[in-house]
Formats: sequence, structure tokens, C-alpha cells
Amino acid sequence: MKALVIVAHGSSREASNQEVIALAERMKESLASEYPLVNTGFLELAEPLIPASIEQCIEKGATEISVLPYFLSAGRHVQEDVPHEVQSVIAKFPQVKIAILSHIGGLPQMDNLIKEAVL
Amino acid sequence: MKALVIVAHGSSREASNQEVIALAERMKESLASEYPLVNTGFLELAEPLIPASIEQCIEKGATEISVLPYFLSAGRHVQEDVPHEVQSVIAKFPQVKIAILSHIGGLPQMDNLIKEAVL
Repeated sequence: MKALVIVAHGSSREASNQEVIALAERMKESLASEYPLVNTGFLELAEPLIPASIEQCIEKGATEISVLPYFLSAGRHVQEDVPHEVQSVIAKFPQVKIAILSHIGGLPQMDNLIKEAVL
Repeated sequence: MKALVIVAHGSSREASNQEVIALAERMKESLASEYPLVNTGFLELAEPLIPASIEQCIEKGATEISVLPYFLSAGRHVQEDVPHEVQSVIAKFPQVKIAILSHIGGLPQMDNLIKEAVL
């Protein structure tokens, strides 16, 4: 069973975390046939943290997990922190397929999104 | 003359700032007929800062400036800090039309971008 974990930084401002959770809820509906499980995970300041979020999916039966970094820039969080958190779960559950997708800001479609936004 | 100012947080990691600058360069090409000027502005840690970036556009003749917050979440930066920085320029140049657009993460097209990324 496939799971999608949307990973964000986490904020001390609860409304920001709720934006990510709402996004995951919408994805859960529209991706239901492809990803029976959609969860959110935070790097810090909000829960569940990334390892706990991935483990929740595994507990629910996920065998293949895609981790989507909801970050615009390939900074330290995307290049080091998120992989580090994910790696801890991979080491613990080697039988589960866990892959980190490109961060949102690295997607080629981002250019079109911005063009639509400003025209 | 219209100008687009893409506003990002700014990072101590220069490669992250360069990502934003590269995005602006691509937008400059593809939006040339609509926005003769495209600039980047940073909230902190990189230059030009937001007010300086907007003023650079005004010096080059911009009379109508759209400020695009390149942020995923409507946190304090989007709700308070960016408007505060922009307001300082509006007060100084009341004859220039300056508007802040929706932050990237608040665009309805974001859902489709994510769906395409994970399918």
C-alpha cells in the first residue's frame, strides 16, 4: 500500500501548520486511488515530526512511502535535515520502500504557476 | 511601466538565494511583454532587501509594481513582515501603484502542481 507524506518545516504559528494539514486533506481526497494514506510530517515546532509521521503510515500498512518536501528552496532543510530524519526510519524499517521526491520549488511546473499568478 | 518584484526570505546559503534570482531571470524572459522589469527582493540575509529592490524598479521608471511573496505559508513573514517592508516604500513614493499579490502557497493551482509531482 502506498503512502504520501507531505513534509513541511513546522511553525510556532498554528494557522501555518493547519494550512499544511488542510493541503494534505485535499490531497487525501484527490489522490485516494493512488495513495490510500496521506499524512503530514514536520521538521520541528509541530507534530507529528517526520519520523513519527512515516511510522504512522507503516503502522497502518504502508509498504511504499513517498516523502514530498513542501519547501520552496533547496536549502539546508531540504538537502540535509529532511533526508536525515527520513534516513532514521529507513534504517529502522529496511523492508519498507521510502523515497524522497523533489522539493516543491524544484518542480519545473513552478514557473507556470507563477506566470499564471501574475498575469 | 510595470514591474514584478519576487520577494523571498533570503538565506545565509548563497545557493538558495541564487535559486530565487534564477527564477526571476526566467520570469524576466517569459514575462517581458507584460513586465519590462523583474527584480528580486529579500526579507533578510541577502540583497537587495525588499525596499531597495522596489526602489530600484522605481528608479528605472516603474509606475506600477506587483510584489509576489515567494512563500508557501501565510505565516508572520507573509502577513506582517513583507507588508511592513512594502509599506515603507508606499509611504515614500505615494505616486507609484504598489500591490502585494497572494503568496505562492495560497494559489489554488498549487494543488494541481502537487498532484502532478506525486503521480
